[in-house]
Amino acid sequence: MYIVILAGGSGTRFWPLSRTARPKQLISITGDRTMLQRTVERVMPLKPKRILIITNTIQAEETERQVVHYRMIPIDVIAEPLARNTAPAIGLAATIIAAHDPEGVMVVLPADHFIKDEQALQKALFDAAHAARSGYLVTLGILPSRPETGYGYIEADMDLRGSGPFPVRRFVEKPPLDEAVRYLDAGNFFWNSGMFIWRADTVRAEIRTYLPELDEALSRLAFTNDIWELSDLEEQIAAVYASVASVSIDYGVMERSSRVQVVPVEMGWSDVGSWSSLPEVVAADESGTVCVNASGHVSLDSSGCLIYVDNKTVATVGVHDLIVVSTPDALLICDRERAQDVKKVVEELGKRGCDFVL
Amino acid sequence: MYIVILAGGSGTRFWPLSRTARPKQLISITGDRTMLQRTVERVMPLKPKRILIITNTIQAEETERQVVHYRMIPIDVIAEPLARNTAPAIGLAATIIAAHDPEGVMVVLPADHFIKDEQALQKALFDAAHAARSGYLVTLGILPSRPETGYGYIEADMDLRGSGPFPVRRFVEKPPLDEAVRYLDAGNFFWNSGMFIWRADTVRAEIRTYLPELDEALSRLAFTNDIWELSDLEEQIAAVYASVASVSIDYGVMERSSRVQVVPVEMGWSDVGSWSSLPEVVAADESGTVCVNASGHVSLDSSGCLIYVDNKTVATVGVHDLIVVSTPDALLICDRERAQDVKKVVEELGKRGCDFVL
Repeated sequence: MYIVILAGGSGTRFWPLSRTARPKQLISITGDRTMLQRTVERVMPLKPKRILIITNTIQAEETERQVVHYRMIPIDVIAEPLARNTAPAIGLAATIIAAHDPEGVMVVLPADHFIKDEQALQKALFDAAHAARSGYLVTLGILPSRPETGYGYIEADMDLRGSGPFPVRRFVEKPPLDEAVRYLDAGNFFWNSGMFIWRADTVRAEIRTYLPELDEALSRLAFTNDIWELSDLEEQIAAVYASVASVSIDYGVMERSSRVQVVPVEMGWSDVGSWSSLPEVVAADESGTVCVNASGHVSLDSSGCLIYVDNKTVATVGVHDLIVVSTPDALLICDRERAQDVKKVVEELGKRGCDFVL
Repeated sequence: MYIVILAGGSGTRFWPLSRTARPKQLISITGDRTMLQRTVERVMPLKPKRILIITNTIQAEETERQVVHYRMIPIDVIAEPLARNTAPAIGLAATIIAAHDPEGVMVVLPADHFIKDEQALQKALFDAAHAARSGYLVTLGILPSRPETGYGYIEADMDLRGSGPFPVRRFVEKPPLDEAVRYLDAGNFFWNSGMFIWRADTVRAEIRTYLPELDEALSRLAFTNDIWELSDLEEQIAAVYASVASVSIDYGVMERSSRVQVVPVEMGWSDVGSWSSLPEVVAADESGTVCVNASGHVSLDSSGCLIYVDNKTVATVGVHDLIVVSTPDALLICDRERAQDVKKVVEELGKRGCDFVL
């Protein structure tokens, strides 16, 4: 089994903790290891043959630094010269793996998700790998816990069997609320997790069918000597990226292929989309308050605050439902309902030319 | 004219900016010079012969450090070995001045008040000094701008003359709201500022009359050589303080003496009693927000916040009427109406043994 971690994101919704050169996957929202480190640790029990981390040139150095302690398993950090969405990144990883082990099963994981029940993940990945070995494109579908309108859904055909994997009927874009409620009730709709399991040659074949231009570019990659020595591939990768279009693996392959299956899984998953997700990854106290990295918290008549500080004593007096984030050079105070607007702050700072906070 | 600055306070209401060893007068609430430094600068145009700063042993070193740049006028920093309220401190200063210049006029000023219109203060002090030279105990009375129930009031007899100083009818303790409203309407009630102007020998005589035990202790002070060289007086001062009771000059002398006059003054005065006073000393923007020491402030749909940071970028999103104070080791988030409860935070931290934040 090969693990491919997609770690090229550059979110702004965790400002001021996240910055351009240190996006969500490279920061520690929980106060200890970073999202990327937790992702690597999560797959260690699977004893993968190799881990490929796809990132970008800005983040490559920090990414290397963060995984240096996990080198008991070979880890390659591959820097994309340009952001081209997930299909080229996955295609590149599949091509590298296929050159070495065509029928090798590859597990694609985002670097910036949180998973509470790691054993449930491991079981789902084993189930998925079983189907993948038979030539399916398998994706994990998260059992929905609420009628979320911010995620895409996967509709499964669950008529035939009692347990997964199930054939996928269709992928559904972010639905309106009434649709989302209906999906929740129906029981065969799952959140699209962005986690994929397939053989390297299977996904390459599907890319050949549905994304022929990408296939052609990837086919030009020539592997000489030890194929895992990627440094000599840098220029070749640059050439591939210069010629390929930006497209997601969902849109480019998953929504078109007839070989797609889904493994439903309930594992305390969160995509940690904004500061308002903090209670999904760090336990709140009885007042609904989450306090990360505080060296002490005095709370007087306060509740529902999500607080992230850099080792400070924190006191809250008569305040409710605030997001408070303090870093050495910036401070955010935000209504908990307005977490999505943090990116507007970053935009505004960018307009003002405050590069130092980006 | 001699200036006596009372700088021994140890407030907790400006936590986390203020600490035991760095109370309000030694911090910079406005973001530049400290309250003490502003108090010294304020009296410089009066060309005083000498400035005596009465503080305590914990704060003496920092107090010395803060006034080192104002040594063009002789400044003595006198450390009280014990806190004994204002009468012993003022009595000590009066005794020292009287030993050198019995009829010298001394101006007593708190170190932790804010005054916007410094020319109005200077004019009031000159008017007061005129009356003081005739043997009156003169106090400045602040023209009230609201029916404040948190201050004491001075009722003046304004029947005889059109401009001050006026005889004082009585001192009034903090009144209930209906009384305060009546005082505001009456026009002859003023806020008790704690600022006094009198001859050194006058106040010593009044202390002799109304506080004979304090007088006796002060009378034991022996001045040899240059009386301004106070270091050799340290043990004598300790002996005085060991024997005197804790009493305020208001209660001990002003409320009893028949020689008291008041000079009304309107000078943008604030006693800066808590973080909610911040808009009285730093101009708010059009949203009612005050932001001190921010290296930039992005405000989205926010208003009425009082923010004090240590050179950070600040962003507020959808929040209103909050007090936010960030220091390198602590962070306070407080409803603006709850500023008085900041001292409860300090109490709670004390109970937990968190001395480092006190």
